[in-house]
Amino acid sequence: MKRAVVLLSGGLDSVTALAIAKQQGYECYTLSFDYGQRHDTELVASEKLSKQLGAKKHKVIKIDLRTIGGSALTDNDIDVPEEHHEGIPVTYVPARNTVFLSIALGWAEVLTANAIYIGVNAVDYSGYPDCRPEFVTAFEQLANLATKTGVEGNKLEVRAPLMRMTKAEIIRQGISLGVDYSQTVSCYQADEDGRACGLCDSCHFRKEGFIQAGISDPTRYSLGS
Amino acid sequence: MKRAVVLLSGGLDSVTALAIAKQQGYECYTLSFDYGQRHDTELVASEKLSKQLGAKKHKVIKIDLRTIGGSALTDNDIDVPEEHHEGIPVTYVPARNTVFLSIALGWAEVLTANAIYIGVNAVDYSGYPDCRPEFVTAFEQLANLATKTGVEGNKLEVRAPLMRMTKAEIIRQGISLGVDYSQTVSCYQADEDGRACGLCDSCHFRKEGFIQAGISDPTRYSLGS
Repeated sequence: MKRAVVLLSGGLDSVTALAIAKQQGYECYTLSFDYGQRHDTELVASEKLSKQLGAKKHKVIKIDLRTIGGSALTDNDIDVPEEHHEGIPVTYVPARNTVFLSIALGWAEVLTANAIYIGVNAVDYSGYPDCRPEFVTAFEQLANLATKTGVEGNKLEVRAPLMRMTKAEIIRQGISLGVDYSQTVSCYQADEDGRACGLCDSCHFRKEGFIQAGISDPTRYSLGS
Repeated sequence: MKRAVVLLSGGLDSVTALAIAKQQGYECYTLSFDYGQRHDTELVASEKLSKQLGAKKHKVIKIDLRTIGGSALTDNDIDVPEEHHEGIPVTYVPARNTVFLSIALGWAEVLTANAIYIGVNAVDYSGYPDCRPEFVTAFEQLANLATKTGVEGNKLEVRAPLMRMTKAEIIRQGISLGVDYSQTVSCYQADEDGRACGLCDSCHFRKEGFIQAGISDPTRYSLGS
């Protein structure tokens, strides 16, 4: 059976990417990171969702991006904005997806996996540079030059199945594949019970997505709605 | 003053790359990884050498590549070979340089650095895929697509000044820049005092390098010579 490493943040997008990888016939190995993020309830959610969706194995790797800082998600001195601004916001974590994909690449090589799935999206998103199609393509090229398996001709694909979908389309697809979105945590500053703030960029896109999909929003909010 | 992040393993090559970065006018920020390697005496060496060569700051980031395994350097069940074989050896750590460069990229972005230096070499080397020029070029392309600073037009260079040098040339260059090679640890299985085995691939290339450079080898060996 062909294998895939799936990056799983515990949010709406990555969980949908996992459901798609499974549907596309992959045995899935899910990978989450304890990187010093504010919202570590997503780690609890990831483990639960990995099991629910039948992944073969779930791994959490600890890497302290707080020692680098530079983001509202990894530095307590920078607040998470509660309204939407133009440009790349302060919640952008320097090189985060590059770091996550690199470690996924290492695991993919050990597993002789054929694909890495990442739930990035360049439609209803915050404008992070490492969520764009050209970034994913460049990483796939790098991946096949970087590894022993790549050199030996075992091509690895980096798949971003949500790249061109709206949030509403992602939600509809996930629902059709049996994803339970009440278990996912998207909020940048969820409380310790996993309840969402309802105000940050990530809550904003998620909330709009459910409205546009015409699906009742199962998110548990602590403020707003 | 222009800034560079320099990957520093504490071995002969990376320390020479640091000396070159300094000579080329960069304020240097050195980065080492505690990744579960066998030879953690290199971390002690790195810190000492970073100071000796006047780096502005030294950072050690912990990331447990043992949870992935797949290499003699991160899995105690795989022995370090004590003779040279053809092909990519078992000391290859899956995606190691990709992971290290990715984290360097994050720090470079926070520092608004203009360059990352890496001491990879494709002449007297073990055949690791992530030491080749095409890998470094692909990473540089990725880096400029992956980051906010890249998108904003602040181009980052990934410099591998040793890429096409023989080990003897590297040693001569380092000596001319004042590097004290007695402090560097190259061995894959150095003992806890930093003494080299004299038998592994890395010791082999280093030993030959000093012979060919016609320079007395300052390495402290525990076995062989």
